[in-house]
Amino acid sequence: MKILNSIPKNDGFFMPAEFEKHYGCIIIWPERPDSWQYGAVMARKAFAKVAEAIARSEKVTVIASDLSYDTAREALPDYIRVVEMSSDDSWARDYAPTFLKNKNGEIRGVDWYFNAWGGLVDGLYFPWDKDNKMARKICDLYDIDVYDIKDFVLEGGSIHVDGEGTVITTEACLLSEGRNPKMTKKDIEEKLKNSLGAEKVIWLKRGIYNDETNEHVDNICAFTAPGEVVLAWCDDKSDPQYEMSKECFDILSKETDAKGRKFKIHKIPQPKPVFMTDDECGGLINFNGEPTRTPGERLAASYVNFYISNGAVIMPGFNDKNDETAKKIIQDIFKDREVIQIYARDILIGGGNIHCITQQIPIFG
Amino acid sequence: MKILNSIPKNDGFFMPAEFEKHYGCIIIWPERPDSWQYGAVMARKAFAKVAEAIARSEKVTVIASDLSYDTAREALPDYIRVVEMSSDDSWARDYAPTFLKNKNGEIRGVDWYFNAWGGLVDGLYFPWDKDNKMARKICDLYDIDVYDIKDFVLEGGSIHVDGEGTVITTEACLLSEGRNPKMTKKDIEEKLKNSLGAEKVIWLKRGIYNDETNEHVDNICAFTAPGEVVLAWCDDKSDPQYEMSKECFDILSKETDAKGRKFKIHKIPQPKPVFMTDDECGGLINFNGEPTRTPGERLAASYVNFYISNGAVIMPGFNDKNDETAKKIIQDIFKDREVIQIYARDILIGGGNIHCITQQIPIFG
Repeated sequence: MKILNSIPKNDGFFMPAEFEKHYGCIIIWPERPDSWQYGAVMARKAFAKVAEAIARSEKVTVIASDLSYDTAREALPDYIRVVEMSSDDSWARDYAPTFLKNKNGEIRGVDWYFNAWGGLVDGLYFPWDKDNKMARKICDLYDIDVYDIKDFVLEGGSIHVDGEGTVITTEACLLSEGRNPKMTKKDIEEKLKNSLGAEKVIWLKRGIYNDETNEHVDNICAFTAPGEVVLAWCDDKSDPQYEMSKECFDILSKETDAKGRKFKIHKIPQPKPVFMTDDECGGLINFNGEPTRTPGERLAASYVNFYISNGAVIMPGFNDKNDETAKKIIQDIFKDREVIQIYARDILIGGGNIHCITQQIPIFG
Repeated sequence: MKILNSIPKNDGFFMPAEFEKHYGCIIIWPERPDSWQYGAVMARKAFAKVAEAIARSEKVTVIASDLSYDTAREALPDYIRVVEMSSDDSWARDYAPTFLKNKNGEIRGVDWYFNAWGGLVDGLYFPWDKDNKMARKICDLYDIDVYDIKDFVLEGGSIHVDGEGTVITTEACLLSEGRNPKMTKKDIEEKLKNSLGAEKVIWLKRGIYNDETNEHVDNICAFTAPGEVVLAWCDDKSDPQYEMSKECFDILSKETDAKGRKFKIHKIPQPKPVFMTDDECGGLINFNGEPTRTPGERLAASYVNFYISNGAVIMPGFNDKNDETAKKIIQDIFKDREVIQIYARDILIGGGNIHCITQQIPIFG
């Protein structure tokens, strides 16, 4: 593994879209007792279901700590690879490498700086050093070269790309005080374009209400094809999500992508608000001074937090009346893929959803 | 990774000889402070030299703990892969999987039980659980199936094969009280043949004097071709090694291999006895009650403890007058391979040598 300090865009490398062909997917096994209630028992079942659904059409590697290797191995089918690696938590989207490719089919990783969604300003745990080391270690594991972009704080969930030059992100996250406060919006835009081999950055303002990632784009909006996006939608004007989604819609309606195309916007209704219960909060083992969940806290549930595998779209369900409607919309968009809906409350409680716990590796070679 | 409980021999799998074509090699980065003097600084330099020498002709993966990953990565060239995995120490020969192949070019691993060279009888450290888990984890890492042979205690260094049906081992080790005391010699012979896909086991009596592994065969005798072995030799009748080597010679002189061939035996002179110094013992951080080294203790130095890579033979040197002689003998045997001699005192002090810290993976696919 070479550690590269050049600029990906200058080297002809760019991030392909998630809906393009994958080699496989990385998932990190949940363990952290202040993230995953009651010893992560239910979370592990949900993670295993996601891993199995993805593994039907691409190679899945699950990363587990030394402590959890044996039980992960036993919980997962034998066609899923389990590899030991240390981490602070289980968000492959945010700190597994962002994978780039070039026109010759070579792939490389990007190693951003990860500071637990806001560092000492409003980060969600401390320390975050093991997570922050994972991207490089994973590139080493796959024996591919890695771009060292440690001078820039970014989580993979805060960007989406169409693979044809367009990046979409949110101001709430990328302009937050806890990430790159010394960089201007223009600096950040240049950094994204250079690092992702892109031409244009589209800035949404905000994401999903009460999303503790400072409102990652991957919870509210995702590319489903070049020129096409899905957007989490709320019809209830009394819900703070209404204004947030509407603002995104207005921006996207006026915008064009890097190729000059107007966007086709598919609205996906939100499930009705999901709240932490007393029992769920009681299952978390917290330590002193740590930001934590409280009973009644609203969780950032959204159907948009799905993963596109080679053969399927794996999307969350919440036992909500909108589960079926959302599934149908996704199925109409992805006509060639099976839509697999997995009950995901036990992932949501940890602070994210199916897209957040996965990271695709483009096909290579 | 499938965990298999069938018998490798019945499945058509067998262990190829080390001198056959490799895919690559596994090495575990030294760290343990009671094995590697003065923070493993010198040991790491020696390990890195071995890794680089092997990497000239095959893919090397170095396994490092979470703690040591960064420094291993920095100490090794970028064409060597570094992968995180927990271990108790650094003896890939003894507890990385034994790799088998079949006639279709498939490979599988063997997961023996490892008990630190003698368990609670005369083992060298406790606990040994992380080492004992490595074979399975490494098979998972390489995405190959593994035979569960945990009902049998064996270290890879206690066997050598010619890839044509012959296994060579020592009674001192395999019949030791600390390994499989309930099995008869015949039981063990059957187990070896079934597990390694072999037809015949040749039993040497002993190995190298004061070898704390209970005298592993890989320190005294190795196959260099079918029907050809090297044997560590001692001309000094006052040295206990004299009788030990002579007994091996006598056995090998009378024996035939699985194909009925007589052995061509190449004698390799021993370096003059090597002893631990006060300073070296002072660099070890021991804990209470542990067996440890004492100043003046004789170390089990031997030139036979070499690794055969695709393009080279990587052999130890001891700054001894016999270094050159031994190198010349090896070079005459391996005419098509470069012989690379590496000063190995800093590996020897840890309790083994170049063969002990390596494990070859046969070519596959």
